[in-house]
Amino acid sequence: MANYPEKVYVNGKIVPHQEAQISIFDRGFLFGDGVYEVMVQIGDSFFYGQEHLNRLIDCLKKINLDFDVSTLPKEVEKLLVASKLEGKDSLVYIQVTRGVAIRKHAFPKTTKPTVIMYAIPFTLPSINQKSIATITTTDNRWHRCDIKATSLLGNVMANDQAAEQGMYESIFIRDGKVTEASHCNVFFVKNDIVYTHPADTYILNGITRQIVIQLCKKLHIEIREEAILKVNMVTMDEAFLSGTTTQIASIGRINNHYYSADGTVGPITKKLQQAFLKLKETHVEATINV
Amino acid sequence: MANYPEKVYVNGKIVPHQEAQISIFDRGFLFGDGVYEVMVQIGDSFFYGQEHLNRLIDCLKKINLDFDVSTLPKEVEKLLVASKLEGKDSLVYIQVTRGVAIRKHAFPKTTKPTVIMYAIPFTLPSINQKSIATITTTDNRWHRCDIKATSLLGNVMANDQAAEQGMYESIFIRDGKVTEASHCNVFFVKNDIVYTHPADTYILNGITRQIVIQLCKKLHIEIREEAILKVNMVTMDEAFLSGTTTQIASIGRINNHYYSADGTVGPITKKLQQAFLKLKETHVEATINV
Repeated sequence: MANYPEKVYVNGKIVPHQEAQISIFDRGFLFGDGVYEVMVQIGDSFFYGQEHLNRLIDCLKKINLDFDVSTLPKEVEKLLVASKLEGKDSLVYIQVTRGVAIRKHAFPKTTKPTVIMYAIPFTLPSINQKSIATITTTDNRWHRCDIKATSLLGNVMANDQAAEQGMYESIFIRDGKVTEASHCNVFFVKNDIVYTHPADTYILNGITRQIVIQLCKKLHIEIREEAILKVNMVTMDEAFLSGTTTQIASIGRINNHYYSADGTVGPITKKLQQAFLKLKETHVEATINV
Repeated sequence: MANYPEKVYVNGKIVPHQEAQISIFDRGFLFGDGVYEVMVQIGDSFFYGQEHLNRLIDCLKKINLDFDVSTLPKEVEKLLVASKLEGKDSLVYIQVTRGVAIRKHAFPKTTKPTVIMYAIPFTLPSINQKSIATITTTDNRWHRCDIKATSLLGNVMANDQAAEQGMYESIFIRDGKVTEASHCNVFFVKNDIVYTHPADTYILNGITRQIVIQLCKKLHIEIREEAILKVNMVTMDEAFLSGTTTQIASIGRINNHYYSADGTVGPITKKLQQAFLKLKETHVEATINV
């Protein structure tokens, strides 16, 4: 994403990005008091769109933010039309905050939530061929990582730490165990068994993470939702990331350990990538559009 | 604070609060990527103003945000003049974010920080006579509570939990120990010894917290920076909160345990409140104004 989106949706109005403003009293700005979603449209259909909206509903509920998500699909449609992205490959960002109020920690009771959205042209590669370089960092984030909240300073600091070292991602270690990465989920493969951290409050239960688990089951690959110890990372056969825009991406390197020096993608990762590609090709028709 | 401030400072401009807007691409809004300060002016002098600015410098450094705080005092002065609060009792809120950029986790390198500030009329009571009712809640915040960051969802959710029960504050318990409260520091007294959590990464080292420690030393009250176990809270003789606007406030109740059913303030808390009042009366002259 090299440019600002042309248009931004702000509380029902669609405006040029330069005019997309909110009050400094918005609790999203003062307190990071909001949640968000990122969805990808392939052709004229959102890939697992309903699942993304369901997660938004779930996260809003978790932070006691009363907002009717069922109003969004129509608004997304308007945004896509205004952005000239109707029926085109694109990425949609949605953020809902607790709205504008005099600064006070406890939630205001009568404030209208703020909704901002934007769409940009975005085409997923068929398969993410990258071999990703990562670092590990202490997971010092809060203990409700199951909420896709905008209080993201821990994530951005970790991600920046990776970027500073020319790496793509930071893999979080909490109490000696791999949880997830700064904006992806993490998987390992050992003896043809796939491992990933269970979907508790220490990770975000990514939509792509859930798809990977489904694909494993479909392909009769054993999948265990068990955290891998940091000390055991280097003994793994393969490692990969999952995420809405990352899709399934092979991890070539964690710190100074190389799973593959030449960027070769491991056999299980490759199998899942191919199954994911197939799912995209077929799911586009089947998915519930927003 | 029952009303919006009349004027808001936004990146060098002072505007009516209704016009105080920032871009939705501000990283303060998208990522909670910013830090803040709250200072109180008593008469024509900020109470420990320089200490607040020093902490702002410290917090900016901790999140690698390059902003020259030495430019602020002049701007605060302009804001106070525009707000008709020059030389008057008031509260100033300052927030610095990493500025406006296309959404991407890693820090943008050339973005200008966003600075917003506002001032409201605010007079501290001589002594905070309240007897505060509190609840305890699990401290599920991140592990860098030493940074006064705007990624505050954990704090606001905890504070709201207290408010829902008609209480003023939530006291955080991490690993069985009392850390701090959602926007105050917490102290206990047992056998004339004052206890508070050490200033590590699990608490914000409040300016008032530091003053309380200094006052204890001055008054020859033994002070130990040791965390109190949750199970031992009920065995304490007194408990109190500290904070910039809370000052020193007696805790009358934690959950269903009453330190004082009739709101009586314990003798050590009272002694510290009186010493704090004296400090305010004398310090106003001595403090370095911003």
